Amino acid sequence: MIYLNGNFIDQDEAKIETNDRGFLLSDGIFETIRVYSGVISRLSDHYNRLKKSADFLNIPFVMSFNELNLALHTLLEKSDLKDKDASMRLTLTRGTGPRGLLPPEKVNPTVMITAFFFPETVHKPYKVMISQIKRNESSPLSNIKSLCYLDNIIARKQADEKGFNECIFLNTQGHVACGSVANIFIVTDKGIVTPRIEDGILPGITRSVVIKICEENNIRVFEQTILLSDLLTAKEVFFTNRLIEIQPVIQINEQLINDGNIGQMTTMLQTLYRNNLAYSESKDSLDEIFNLKCH
Amino acid sequence: MIYLNGNFIDQDEAKIETNDRGFLLSDGIFETIRVYSGVISRLSDHYNRLKKSADFLNIPFVMSFNELNLALHTLLEKSDLKDKDASMRLTLTRGTGPRGLLPPEKVNPTVMITAFFFPETVHKPYKVMISQIKRNESSPLSNIKSLCYLDNIIARKQADEKGFNECIFLNTQGHVACGSVANIFIVTDKGIVTPRIEDGILPGITRSVVIKICEENNIRVFEQTILLSDLLTAKEVFFTNRLIEIQPVIQINEQLINDGNIGQMTTMLQTLYRNNLAYSESKDSLDEIFNLKCH
Repeated sequence: MIYLNGNFIDQDEAKIETNDRGFLLSDGIFETIRVYSGVISRLSDHYNRLKKSADFLNIPFVMSFNELNLALHTLLEKSDLKDKDASMRLTLTRGTGPRGLLPPEKVNPTVMITAFFFPETVHKPYKVMISQIKRNESSPLSNIKSLCYLDNIIARKQADEKGFNECIFLNTQGHVACGSVANIFIVTDKGIVTPRIEDGILPGITRSVVIKICEENNIRVFEQTILLSDLLTAKEVFFTNRLIEIQPVIQINEQLINDGNIGQMTTMLQTLYRNNLAYSESKDSLDEIFNLKCH
Repeated sequence: MIYLNGNFIDQDEAKIETNDRGFLLSDGIFETIRVYSGVISRLSDHYNRLKKSADFLNIPFVMSFNELNLALHTLLEKSDLKDKDASMRLTLTRGTGPRGLLPPEKVNPTVMITAFFFPETVHKPYKVMISQIKRNESSPLSNIKSLCYLDNIIARKQADEKGFNECIFLNTQGHVACGSVANIFIVTDKGIVTPRIEDGILPGITRSVVIKICEENNIRVFEQTILLSDLLTAKEVFFTNRLIEIQPVIQINEQLINDGNIGQMTTMLQTLYRNNLAYSESKDSLDEIFNLKCH
């Protein structure tokens, strides 16, 4: 089952128009949402980020938070994922349009939601390769989860072909940016550091959670520019995203990090992160939503 | 009518799968093809460029040149565009796939062709704006007509909102790259100059034609890096692409080019370009193709 423009339909029957600008010109955005035992994690963060990106791109997104919450939960239910661990993807495009780059005056956006069973994250430590492709921090898209993912696909595939699990993008200044699907953190003597948004990164939701966890636990954490040399001499390195959560990195190109072992700080943050999942939207609120629907 | 994966169908009936990687991740490429009075212009150039890009991205494209030629002509015929001026778009994506960036092992690409009536190009001189977004010459995509067009949409829209007809991208070195849908040329005392492919530009087919026309007519032409100062002090500036052909630029930001008039060299090249259309594939070859089909 998928959700498409207000309807819940079988994926086989659901189709995208051939002149959807998301398909023709990557004119759209998406969110990847994590669900733990049927509880949607940090939906308001996803909603706010999506809204902000849609506003910037001038793509109307008219669903209220409650409408989106209801759609997601209904889809989980219809997909037999009601109490399961799942990942969901919400895709918003500018919808169909005539030939050419300029958007049509009247926009009828496409909203699609898909849900997949996604078992508990297993953290095989990563060996990663620094990509020759630079993250373009001059583009607003470097801060937006847009449909433009082909650079990431190429870089990830090149890493995969050389036996690496992921890649790291530097930005055009040569500063550390992110992975192909993840934010990056390094652990140094001075504290934990993650690149600034201005360095050309997505404002990751898991990234925010990790920063908050650090602050709440008196772990020094900084958003600041990371040089390549800082990265290669870091005591520990890890990626974050909704699905991989906190993912240890033990090798960058040929350079071992922490002698090739998962670091203590990374392990501690993984534990704190798991405990933090209680911060997610509670089931109460969604029961409330369902009640609203029934009455 | 459109062509989709071997079938000619009504656009209303033709649909794209919801898990097509072209839709989800901009994992695909396209070509925009010009047709003059039913004659497809420079199809072999388009075919070769598409093949090269598909090979680089490892997207299988199995149509032979003759099969593609036949499909395009059949679509023109079925769309009542047989002897008309038209533009066609060929889109090739990696097809459907499971969640995640890495392509599936078995790829079943999507091939879509659409055709539009496209009347003779009218050349209202352009006022253009230099975009704050940089062209990322570190990415192989800067040389590939991929589906990643959202940067171009944003920049073009920003230009439009400020009353400009187009934008110009500089690359991350600050050197002149291209427009949102076009290559760029400048006319100087030393000759005609267009950026090198390495500066982060698409190897445009119209760009190649213009270079060839210059060479054949003893007009000095160079592929070399263009500084912003070169651009702003150029005697003439023009864009090229398949649809706008040779498009005069008379203003960049607040700076007039050639006192705001279309330049002589630009006008001469427009005439030579129009005459050069006879170089396109002849009708003979396509009659031959149709004969092959009938016998």
